[in-house]
Amino acid sequence: MNAVGLIVEYNPFHNGHAFHLSASKEVANAEVVIAVMSGNFLQRGEPALVSKWYRTKMALLNGVDIVLELPYIFAVQKAEIFANGAVSILDAAGCNAVCFGSESGDLSSFLQTIDFIDEQKQQLEENIHRFIDTGVSYPKAVSLAYHQLSDFNSYLDLAKPNNILGIEYIRAIKKQKSSLKPMTVARKNADYHDEHFASETIASATSIRKAILSKEGGQNSIGQYVPSPTEQLLSEYLIEYQVFHQWENYWNYLQFRLLQSTPEELREIYEVEEGLENRILAAALIAGSFHEFMEKIKTKRYTWTRLQRLCVHILTNTKKGQMAGPSDKASYLRLLGMTPKGKEYLNKRKKDFSLPLVSRLSSYKGKEIQLDLKAARIYSLGVAPHLTKELMNKEFKQPPILIEKG
Amino acid sequence: MNAVGLIVEYNPFHNGHAFHLSASKEVANAEVVIAVMSGNFLQRGEPALVSKWYRTKMALLNGVDIVLELPYIFAVQKAEIFANGAVSILDAAGCNAVCFGSESGDLSSFLQTIDFIDEQKQQLEENIHRFIDTGVSYPKAVSLAYHQLSDFNSYLDLAKPNNILGIEYIRAIKKQKSSLKPMTVARKNADYHDEHFASETIASATSIRKAILSKEGGQNSIGQYVPSPTEQLLSEYLIEYQVFHQWENYWNYLQFRLLQSTPEELREIYEVEEGLENRILAAALIAGSFHEFMEKIKTKRYTWTRLQRLCVHILTNTKKGQMAGPSDKASYLRLLGMTPKGKEYLNKRKKDFSLPLVSRLSSYKGKEIQLDLKAARIYSLGVAPHLTKELMNKEFKQPPILIEKG
Repeated sequence: MNAVGLIVEYNPFHNGHAFHLSASKEVANAEVVIAVMSGNFLQRGEPALVSKWYRTKMALLNGVDIVLELPYIFAVQKAEIFANGAVSILDAAGCNAVCFGSESGDLSSFLQTIDFIDEQKQQLEENIHRFIDTGVSYPKAVSLAYHQLSDFNSYLDLAKPNNILGIEYIRAIKKQKSSLKPMTVARKNADYHDEHFASETIASATSIRKAILSKEGGQNSIGQYVPSPTEQLLSEYLIEYQVFHQWENYWNYLQFRLLQSTPEELREIYEVEEGLENRILAAALIAGSFHEFMEKIKTKRYTWTRLQRLCVHILTNTKKGQMAGPSDKASYLRLLGMTPKGKEYLNKRKKDFSLPLVSRLSSYKGKEIQLDLKAARIYSLGVAPHLTKELMNKEFKQPPILIEKG
Repeated sequence: MNAVGLIVEYNPFHNGHAFHLSASKEVANAEVVIAVMSGNFLQRGEPALVSKWYRTKMALLNGVDIVLELPYIFAVQKAEIFANGAVSILDAAGCNAVCFGSESGDLSSFLQTIDFIDEQKQQLEENIHRFIDTGVSYPKAVSLAYHQLSDFNSYLDLAKPNNILGIEYIRAIKKQKSSLKPMTVARKNADYHDEHFASETIASATSIRKAILSKEGGQNSIGQYVPSPTEQLLSEYLIEYQVFHQWENYWNYLQFRLLQSTPEELREIYEVEEGLENRILAAALIAGSFHEFMEKIKTKRYTWTRLQRLCVHILTNTKKGQMAGPSDKASYLRLLGMTPKGKEYLNKRKKDFSLPLVSRLSSYKGKEIQLDLKAARIYSLGVAPHLTKELMNKEFKQPPILIEKG
């Protein structure tokens, strides 16, 4: 059984994802689709709109056969570590290929860009340091440094997050000496950062989230951009938990934690660099919302996304040394859900998996998974207080979701 | 100007307090009444119903001339340390006497009890240890141990918190070699722990709080037990901040902090003794309210009050070593409010005060006062989110309240 691996967040699952899924299955000639999906907190440093269980259902109802969780230690991370963790999971789960979406749909452009960067490495690093010294953020410095190289415009634009991710997936495969075959399929139009609807059926996840969270539009306006199971499951989530999760739901907790923290404690948190702690503590005293808080701590030096991830780490109290580094690989495969075909695949193949397959938290004693449990508990504080307990308990008790496909 | 010192919490100021105040003034032959009052968190380990500023107004409108804050490091403490801190403040503020309420109104019964305990010290300690080994709480062991001494019933009942406090006030005066004269006046009936209204005009603070917090009764039912400024100020507080503070308002923050804490971090908190941390963390996962949480962590070994104080310290993130010990005295006098007569007293006498008089936080750099500031900020999370900022900023900006008396 040929299996193709996808690296996803599905926040929420939309038509662009459906297209990526079927195109990937086709080009990889795969019978089975395995998705490694961020849990409740995402790479951009945000809570997912709905819990990982609902997002797992969306994935399974839309053609994914197996959903594995990308652990917190990889998920709430910059592209390099995120990619390395995700690739290590797909590799351990026996995938033949990993297929990501890109503007061009042309793998050779990625391979050539990587070669080009590697050749120009020294020059690039010098340029990066020079730009960082002017006070800009690291990603911005990389992009500027790269633009100063000759011939740069024959290659992929490194200012685009999706290009960076694609490059990191390929690099992770190489670094891990994995037999995974990297592949890419062209994305349907709708730029990643586009906040407005771009075409008739494809819209960016950002614009879809914006529509979902805006009180005026509500859910009705997203029907043409998401498959019906997504729309259905979003409605069910709202009925069950009365909210969609967003940062503002956690602002009071973040503020409380900052009000009670010392600068020394804050400095222990992952990604809190020297000097940032005082800026953060001062902002917590005067901000009236998460957005206001972010505006106050933002500087040229740090990207919004980086600072949001840092805030997630404060919320989960994740210390330096507890997160994965660029060379760390996953130590377990957390199974969130499967279709009958996925189940068949697992039954046949799991004895060859290089990592333990975890179906229930209660039956696995690995230390790192505790951070996923903690993140899920903290995430559950984002719903109405009388529903917190129910969502919180799910993490420990919920068996993998099994969808019977029609 | 003769000044009498009172040690109070005024949560809220009621008719019993008014009686204590006027009787104290009379027996001490005092022109000026100085109250040292717990701030936003109280000795029982609870948030005060209304902020210290409103409670200061109640005190001033009812006959107190100067209100000084009992710092957090003394206020949220067992009787011995609470008393020692309060006495050190009244002494530093130039009081001639300290006058506390008691059932008997007879100082000699306190002095005799202290002498008796001191004489029987060795026997008492042996008894206490024996009872503690059976698993009962320290205060309970003290009371049982004491009952085993011969002649105990000629002396004060050590099971009553107010007797314990009176004894500790006298001991603190002795320990500090203070020239303060200890005095006591008889309390009007209404037992400290009585939850139901006991007489026509006097009720315990506990029963008054219960009436205020019960939705059915509301404020109307307390009119006969509190002076009109109290009733008026409680109404104003409700209009300004939309709540009375109680533990349940802080439960989500306590739970959040416990969900993100490790046992090791929890063990650093003041009063968290070995072994208690796991019990506390386990309870946080299943409790749906503060009361339910308390029921789950309660054991014979710890009193409810002691555990509530511990919860306040978790909320304020107060570590071992940050609180006062039994020999520590105050290092500043925080002025919360005064009448014109109080102002006159301060103008005449403050040059002789043995401690700095702090009118505004912004003008004082002492380290310990930071804990009062932090406690006030955390306390302000108990009001509606859109009002938090206003209450929080007050702590830093509010000058001492000056009441013009008619």
